Amino acid sequence: IYVCMIDHAFGNVLRKLRNERDLSQEEFGFAAGIHRTYVSQLERGLKSPSLKKLETICSVLEIPLSEFMSLIEREQ
Amino acid sequence: IYVCMIDHAFGNVLRKLRNERDLSQEEFGFAAGIHRTYVSQLERGLKSPSLKKLETICSVLEIPLSEFMSLIEREQ
Repeated sequence: IYVCMIDHAFGNVLRKLRNERDLSQEEFGFAAGIHRTYVSQLERGLKSPSLKKLETICSVLEIPLSEFMSLIEREQ
Repeated sequence: IYVCMIDHAFGNVLRKLRNERDLSQEEFGFAAGIHRTYVSQLERGLKSPSLKKLETICSVLEIPLSEFMSLIEREQ
């Protein structure tokens, strides 16, 4: 499957931050209002989240969107 | 119509940066590989762009994604 670089980098950062916060994919998904399988797809870079969804994800992780993007830029 | 706050802020920043670069919606859309009507919808906050699309948009505008997000945060 073709995985886009930025979605891949996003997935890696998401997994890292979620683990740092000791949240399972299920717990994180519940807090963000998204299904556990979608969390898994995001973390594997298989989905490209919308800006709206990015905002929700960052708010659950308590990190500014701009800071999340800086982490992605460093990941690439 | 319901317009999400962050998509609205995104649209305002996009329009501002596009105008600063003296690009019409058509020219910008062509460079970013998106249709002029989609550019218009983005600028009005009617669509929530995917991360993949955000990356393309920022690359055309020659601005890091993290910096674009900082501008959005200041806009809100």
